[in-house]
Order: sequence, then structure tokens, then C-alpha cells
Amino acid sequence: MKDISLSISPLDASALSAAKARQDSLAKPPHSLGKLEDISVKLAGITGQLYNPVEKRRVLIFASDNGIAHEGVASAPQSVTLSQTINFTRGLTGVAVLAKHFRAELDVMDVGIDAEFTQPGVRDCKIARGTRNFAVEPAMTREQCLRAIGIGIEAARRAKREGMQIVGIGEMGIGNTSTSSAVLSVLLDLPAAETVSRGAGINDEAYKRKVRLIDEAIARYRPDPADPIDVIAKVGGFDIAAMCGAFLGAASERLPVVIDGFISAVAALCAVRMEPLAAGYMFPSHESREKGYMLAMDAMGLKPMLALDMRLGEGSGCPIAFEIISAAESVIAHMATFEEAAINDDYLAEIRPNKRYQGEA
Amino acid sequence: MKDISLSISPLDASALSAAKARQDSLAKPPHSLGKLEDISVKLAGITGQLYNPVEKRRVLIFASDNGIAHEGVASAPQSVTLSQTINFTRGLTGVAVLAKHFRAELDVMDVGIDAEFTQPGVRDCKIARGTRNFAVEPAMTREQCLRAIGIGIEAARRAKREGMQIVGIGEMGIGNTSTSSAVLSVLLDLPAAETVSRGAGINDEAYKRKVRLIDEAIARYRPDPADPIDVIAKVGGFDIAAMCGAFLGAASERLPVVIDGFISAVAALCAVRMEPLAAGYMFPSHESREKGYMLAMDAMGLKPMLALDMRLGEGSGCPIAFEIISAAESVIAHMATFEEAAINDDYLAEIRPNKRYQGEA
Repeated sequence: MKDISLSISPLDASALSAAKARQDSLAKPPHSLGKLEDISVKLAGITGQLYNPVEKRRVLIFASDNGIAHEGVASAPQSVTLSQTINFTRGLTGVAVLAKHFRAELDVMDVGIDAEFTQPGVRDCKIARGTRNFAVEPAMTREQCLRAIGIGIEAARRAKREGMQIVGIGEMGIGNTSTSSAVLSVLLDLPAAETVSRGAGINDEAYKRKVRLIDEAIARYRPDPADPIDVIAKVGGFDIAAMCGAFLGAASERLPVVIDGFISAVAALCAVRMEPLAAGYMFPSHESREKGYMLAMDAMGLKPMLALDMRLGEGSGCPIAFEIISAAESVIAHMATFEEAAINDDYLAEIRPNKRYQGEA
Repeated sequence: MKDISLSISPLDASALSAAKARQDSLAKPPHSLGKLEDISVKLAGITGQLYNPVEKRRVLIFASDNGIAHEGVASAPQSVTLSQTINFTRGLTGVAVLAKHFRAELDVMDVGIDAEFTQPGVRDCKIARGTRNFAVEPAMTREQCLRAIGIGIEAARRAKREGMQIVGIGEMGIGNTSTSSAVLSVLLDLPAAETVSRGAGINDEAYKRKVRLIDEAIARYRPDPADPIDVIAKVGGFDIAAMCGAFLGAASERLPVVIDGFISAVAALCAVRMEPLAAGYMFPSHESREKGYMLAMDAMGLKPMLALDMRLGEGSGCPIAFEIISAAESVIAHMATFEEAAINDDYLAEIRPNKRYQGEA
């Protein structure tokens, strides 16, 4: 990884084999529990342990504003970035309610909200008051992008230090479907029409404008698809950069990390492009309704576990995935092996009525 | 419903509207929580209440043997029906582990296991020691089918009486993918090649035999597709009949009911064909890998919420769905409305640093 010193190792091969062998020994047709089996095997590869409780859970939420929002491409006013960030701390938003339901903490970071404020529960990591408007100039400097990535890496390390067993990566930032589509378009060499969704509450005119601005910016700045830092700096956002760092940091800490929706998936793809081994540490959650989401998944070879038609963002899919991952752990830990499940003849004799009579017949 | 006296009402229209209005008032883009929103609206329509805790959860498991298993079409010996049924009560199987993880009870019923036995935790509702082999003769009499349906209806009523807020419908029965494919083929007028999966651990020869036996049986007995009781009696099983009854019983008790995998989906479709309003009370869980599953879903206009590549059966998808439904309830109950989420100017003034200075500037 250019500019970033971080070591990410392959999954533990012997733990992977041990978990696979254990799954194959459980009393069920081969692979009949599907992804619940795969999840437990991957977890073992990540931690090197056969059994991996995931009770200590945290969603890392990176909030920031995007200059591109001034172009009228977003469905909500920019002030919503700040108000929803405050609402995370009040337990009122989608991710906050779902995190509480599934016993997960939130770590909310301001990496670039366009407002000066202090709010208990929001960590001040502000790089600038929003990015520049990429319709006019590159969104940020390379140095700013690296700082944002560093904030994400540190958030993952902090989670590990504080005993978390799994993290999820979410965001808040009006305009960040535009930045995510732009980054994805560069990484996959696709026109914006293929990475921008119509469905996000914007009208036809705003949709066309969004597509055009992205295509134009890419043509103008020519970000280097082989260098995600360059891509994020030119057409991305502080949130995407920090999320990318969080994915890398989680992998380097051997901490399982859950991808939320579209923006989270694009940040994950940036991380995987910087270090392909990072994908081994990632668990997708839900299949977002944003059309770019599955493009990013396919590029990483990952498949989501939830089909909930969600497209809220915030990290809202992560707490649900935490619980499914936890259920996968229950299966590998508690299901009977074929040997344990075998009902022997003595027991069968015992449960049959009139066994004495039958035995003597 | 021919032969069955049961009253199933439409969903409560005013509760549906109230829940929809509440969802639309929550601080998020319209329908951005997708099925989590739909689930809470449907629950309201079922119970007539806006908020519906689903903490009292039970999986109804109907176990029985199928004569067709003697034709070598199944991947496991028939004795597995009995041994896994016993293992449900020992907490060792997939559904048992997942039910424990998600705080759900099991109600295990023997509706036709081919063995005489008594086992604590297994309710004796045996109709016969397995069905007849439909490759030779119809699986059961119409009277037996009606008895099995009645057992399912009573199981749903018992769940309601005992305070359950949601139930799921599972099964155990070697050979029951054959019976389910046969029933589905009749209901949808499809050749067996389109409803039988290759993937269920059987070899090519067994697969071809399975397809041929089903097509032949349907051609011979000509079950009436408009009469699911006739279809189940001729080529189905006691488990499918009882599960069909459980879906009907749940709907008549206004009890939300979760569909598991392929066999459960076919039983649900039988119920919907008998009473279309029953679909209003059903929640699919996971998209089974059995190819007939999505055919049944499409026929009912339902879409699963989990993409876990599971095909274990037993009811194993139900406990996971219970928890997602519960999370959907948390959202409608606890997320802020736009009004509650609005951060007013006084508050913003308060959280801005140096506000006095700024105020005076």
C-alpha cells in the first residue's frame, strides 16, 4: 500500500481447515447451512480460533460533508449530516435503534462535518468543514485523504484495544452516494450511468445532473484507478477515506469487519484494491438497493446475507449481520456431530413402548 | 375451504394504514429500511395493533416418514427421521441450536414417524407409521390428510393459547423433498424436472428416478390442482398436511407465521390455495437452495428476507427470521419521527463552540 504502512496477513490456514472439518462433521447434509457454515469458517481463519464469540460489537460511523452536495444532487439538505450525527448519540436514528436492539455500541466520528460544534458522543476528528466541490476542483488533497484513512485505521485499532470482537462500518454524509458512485466508476472503469441509482429520492433532472457531473469530473481529473488514494482524493469524501482506513485497520488487527450498504461497499473495495488480503476479513450484510452495491460486491467476490431492500446507510445493516454471524457461531459451537447425533440401539430400545415384550417376541 | 371449517379474515386495514403512516413519518428517506418497514406494517395488519413485540416465539416441527423413501430417492436412511426428531428434544440439531440462540421454543410433533416410541418432548400425534409409497399407491386417504391438517391447526391454536406472539413452521421427514416437489408440480402444473433439485446430496441416477417417479405418480392419480387436500393425500406427506394446517390455523388465530425452506413453502402454498387470505399472515425467512422454493414464493407473491444458501429444513430459518421481525418492530417503535429528529436552532446554538462570541459577531 502506497503511503500507508500496515501489515495485513492471510487468513490462518490451519484454523480454516479445522473449522471446515468441524462443519463437515456436524449432523446435517453437507453445506446445508450454507453461509452460516462459511461465516464460522471465515471467522476461524480471521482469529485463528475455532470458536469466536462476537458479543462485543461496535459500529464505526464516519460523518462528513461533501462539497458536491452544493450542486443539488442530493435528496436532503446538507444540514441533515449534522442533525443525524447528533441523533446517533441520542439513539434516534435507524442504526442507533438497530444497534441497541442487537447490543452493539456506536463510535461516531466527525471527519468533516461542515459545522463547528461539540457534542458528547461525537468524536472530533474533523479534517475540514466538508470536502471541496468536485464539480469545481478535486475534493481534497492527497494529504487530507491519508489523514482520513489514518483516522479510520485508528478507529479500528481502538475497537480492538477496547475488546471488540467485531466491528461494522457506517457513515453519514449528504452527497455521499455521488462521491461513492464517482469512486466506483473510476475503480471499475464504468460510466456514471451504471453506478448512480435513480431511486435515492431525487428527480430525473437531479439524476441526470449527478451522472453528468461525475463523468465530467472523472474526465477532468483522470484519477488513477490503480491508486484508490488518488481516486478518493479527487472525487471521493472524507467518510469514504476513513471507512477505507477502518477496513484496512480491522484486517491488520485480525478483527472481523462488516460492510453496510453502498458507500461502505465502495470504501471496502478501495481497501481491497490497496490490499487484496483485506477481503478475507470482511463480511457483507445486506444487499443494498443502490445499484452500485452489487458491482462492488462482485468486484470483491463477496455475497450479502440479507435481502432487506434497505438503502438507509448509517451502518444500519451491520447490527443485523452481527447477530447472524453470532448465530453462525452458535451452530459450529453447539450443533451435534454425526457421532453425537447417532441414536444407538440401546436408546432406541429404551424409548420403544413394550420393549420387554418386543424384545422377547 | 372444502372439508375444513375455519375463518380467516383480511388484515386490519386501519392498522395497516396507521403503521404505514408511522413508517413514513420516521426520519429516513421513504422506504429506505425496505422490508423492515413492510414487516412492521404487515404485523400491524395481522394483530390490529401498531406495536407488536415478538418475544414469545415457537417453531412447530412436524415429523413423519414417507413411503416414497423406500424407492431410494432420499440422501439419508429413513431412520434419520426418528433420530433427528429425538435430537430436537436434546437441543442438538440445526433448528434446536438456532432456536436456543434466538430464544424460541420448539413444539415437536410426531405425525407419522415409522417407529413406535415415546420420547419426552415429542408430542404423539401419529396418524400412521409413515405414508404409503406413492410410487405404488396414493400416499394416504383423504381422511388421513384431513386429520393431519387438523393436527396442524390445533398446534397453531395451542401456540396462541399459550401466549406465543409468532410461530414458525418446520419439519423432519426423510423423503419429503420428493413429496414437496410432487405437490408443487401439481399445484403449478410443472413437470418434476422443474421442481426437483439435483443438489440434495443424491446422485444422478437417484435424481432421474425421483423425477420419473413423481411424473408417473401425477399422471396415474391425477390429483386435482384446485383441491390441495387431494394433492397432498395422493402425492404429499403427513408433515406437509399438518404444516398446511398450521399455516391456516395461525392465520385464523391472527398469529404471525414464518415459512422456513422448501417443504414449508410448499405447505404454505397449499394453505394459500385453500384460502388466499392466509398469505397475509405469512413471513418468508430464507431463500432456500432447493429450486422449487422460489417457485412457491413467486406463486404466493412473497419475498424472502435472508440469503443464506441454506437447505437444511427442520424450521432452521425461522428463529433467524423471528429476530429480524423483532428488529423491524424496534424500528417502528423507537426510531425518531422527522419532528423528533429535527435539531432546533436553540440546540444548534448550544452545541457550537464560542457561541457567545459568534452570537455577538
